[in-house]
Amino acid sequence: VALKKKFFDKLETRAPKRREAALMAELPELITHAKRRAPGFAKILGDVDPSKLKSRAALAKLPVTRKSDLGTLQKEMPPLGGLNATPVEKLGKLFVSPGPIYDPEGRGRDWWRTARGLFAGGFRAGDRVLNTFAYHFTPAGSMLESGATAIGCTVIPGGVGQTEMQVATIRDLKVNAFVGTPSFLKLIVEKADEMKADISSLEKAHVGAEYLPPQLRKSLGERGIRVSQTYASADLGLIAYESVMPDGTVNEGMILDERLILEIVRPGTGDPVAPGEVGEVVITTFNKDYPLIRFGTGDLSAVLPGTSPCGRTNVRIKGWMGRADQSTKVRAMFVTPRQVSEIVRRHPEILRARLVVEGEAGEDRMTLKCEMRERLPGAAEAIVASIREVTKLRGDVQLVEPASLPNDGKVIEDLRKYG
Amino acid sequence: VALKKKFFDKLETRAPKRREAALMAELPELITHAKRRAPGFAKILGDVDPSKLKSRAALAKLPVTRKSDLGTLQKEMPPLGGLNATPVEKLGKLFVSPGPIYDPEGRGRDWWRTARGLFAGGFRAGDRVLNTFAYHFTPAGSMLESGATAIGCTVIPGGVGQTEMQVATIRDLKVNAFVGTPSFLKLIVEKADEMKADISSLEKAHVGAEYLPPQLRKSLGERGIRVSQTYASADLGLIAYESVMPDGTVNEGMILDERLILEIVRPGTGDPVAPGEVGEVVITTFNKDYPLIRFGTGDLSAVLPGTSPCGRTNVRIKGWMGRADQSTKVRAMFVTPRQVSEIVRRHPEILRARLVVEGEAGEDRMTLKCEMRERLPGAAEAIVASIREVTKLRGDVQLVEPASLPNDGKVIEDLRKYG
Repeated sequence: VALKKKFFDKLETRAPKRREAALMAELPELITHAKRRAPGFAKILGDVDPSKLKSRAALAKLPVTRKSDLGTLQKEMPPLGGLNATPVEKLGKLFVSPGPIYDPEGRGRDWWRTARGLFAGGFRAGDRVLNTFAYHFTPAGSMLESGATAIGCTVIPGGVGQTEMQVATIRDLKVNAFVGTPSFLKLIVEKADEMKADISSLEKAHVGAEYLPPQLRKSLGERGIRVSQTYASADLGLIAYESVMPDGTVNEGMILDERLILEIVRPGTGDPVAPGEVGEVVITTFNKDYPLIRFGTGDLSAVLPGTSPCGRTNVRIKGWMGRADQSTKVRAMFVTPRQVSEIVRRHPEILRARLVVEGEAGEDRMTLKCEMRERLPGAAEAIVASIREVTKLRGDVQLVEPASLPNDGKVIEDLRKYG
Repeated sequence: VALKKKFFDKLETRAPKRREAALMAELPELITHAKRRAPGFAKILGDVDPSKLKSRAALAKLPVTRKSDLGTLQKEMPPLGGLNATPVEKLGKLFVSPGPIYDPEGRGRDWWRTARGLFAGGFRAGDRVLNTFAYHFTPAGSMLESGATAIGCTVIPGGVGQTEMQVATIRDLKVNAFVGTPSFLKLIVEKADEMKADISSLEKAHVGAEYLPPQLRKSLGERGIRVSQTYASADLGLIAYESVMPDGTVNEGMILDERLILEIVRPGTGDPVAPGEVGEVVITTFNKDYPLIRFGTGDLSAVLPGTSPCGRTNVRIKGWMGRADQSTKVRAMFVTPRQVSEIVRRHPEILRARLVVEGEAGEDRMTLKCEMRERLPGAAEAIVASIREVTKLRGDVQLVEPASLPNDGKVIEDLRKYG
């Protein structure tokens, strides 16, 4: 019966309008909860009136809290920056990422919501899953284990390294499902060949945390291992996931999880971009323990038009398209996406802008390429003055046609080649 | 309220007679379950009639299945030797120990029952617990994590190694409780001194998996870290635990868990020893997923007379007193505790025996020291003949007074010094 179930739950096939209405209806309650229980968010949200938070337009006016802010916030209000609505002593676990950055895990089944992504990747009750994400300090192991056991899989917590033992375990226990990074799966398959170990029991893999080269997916597919991807993070849990068709085809794009609101914003700002444009992934999550509101992941992606052929109706995004934090040093001074955004804000005739940094070491040049709504006389000179004022640096301006800048989420493009 | 709770549950303070009656009453059902659901035990138990298994005397007639048998049993009936009553696809996890030996974890809260031991060691809801047992392949991390979260602790899964990060985590998160091996705790404390890191938040530790030197316990106590021990294994979960008094005193002995039947047997046999005598720890566990019946742990221990001053009424055992598998090679032939037992069985006038092996390499001598009930004429010569018959080796006999052999569980004592 479980094998015939097509969807993880009914949320996945809701009419998009119903989903949107449900998420927006739930938003005021989430904001109320965060303001009341999470002192960090009480501070961030200030005197925002939760009852008015019923639309994306209203949400877009709230401040973005970025992953890169967590270090400072957590130092100010240890250990979690007050972003947790559940006090530490009521949480299930705490993890430590380099920084150190602390991440909480609450209590209860499938807390990270990774089961939905595993299910869409074809994982089912009774599967024997080798989970090769690390369990020590980082949440990755626990994130995927909790999802797999929620589905009813039997998990072998392999953790990282010990490649020969991983191979022997797949062979001896007839493991049929793998969870981990694509590069470690590649290593395991190569080691199995070297050991002449029969790992043909392995029929599916759910991978994440790094780029999956299409060629690797293809070659694993030829060995009978169907690979699906998950996009998750240590703060948000599952963000988006790939779905697999009954014939094994993996559908284009990553489908958004059901317990999130996604925005794609111009890097360095809180401003949503036009549909389809590349920008920073900003997530608002309906997690009662850790209700992150407008959390800037630092990842670049874009919304894909339409919906997946698998029947799931939620928004799809492209995979990971780079880092959103494009801050760089020019002539020993920091230049940030936020500064570029400030320059654009001062000149309403600019549609989009991109700061290009070039030159040899010590002789940096910067040019602000501006897509112009209209060409007003003296505009270029005025923008040059704004650049100097905002960045304390001299920069050139180049006026370009609307829609002529690449759609890659870059607000600052660093073309310098050092070393 | 939780802090004032003295016992984990009401089972701990039952009158010993009530506990014994309850365990014996439950035994037939356990045997029925194992025979019906675990094909390995169906084979081991043969035509045993479960309805007659209502006493220790009846239990003592069943075969002992030893930890050292698991490798062979698992090869014959992969992956768990058919000792699991829950099929693999319904289990929560599988672990891999060197060998490889596979160990199951079922589903549900506190499956390994370690919460009882942690509670007796003073662990309470809200504690911040650094769990430094490994989570990868081995069950140790999961065993203690599940117990700690069942109590309501918040767990930081530190895993093994990364000593500096462990110290920084204790310092920055104000961790107040440690779980792991005593030697790793020692390493962490020394590293903290070296780093001049303030880890004074650490007030308790629950340690296991190796010997705890009394001097280490003392020096940790002087730093304000109260150390209690747990005795658990990858197959049985919690076996026994130390209890701590409100004033911090750690009571003598390890109290048996409530969901077990303990026997101490003569190494190499299934025969219970006299009360207080050292022998192999044999456990029958009321675990519905993995109902190990007369499972020989390979560990030596002994029952302590009386009960603990903490108020828990269950039997106490001494800590780990050595390995029960004393098989050795004499003149290139294996001599086993089972052979010694066979010799003793042939001469009812022998109360206890101990085979002492001495000599330089290549010139091994063995002597069977026998405590005699009565000295029959010709007994020594007859025993010498039995030694030759059973071991295919020549051995001397030395008749000694009853109760003159040391109470250390040794059936074979190897006094040879090689290398």
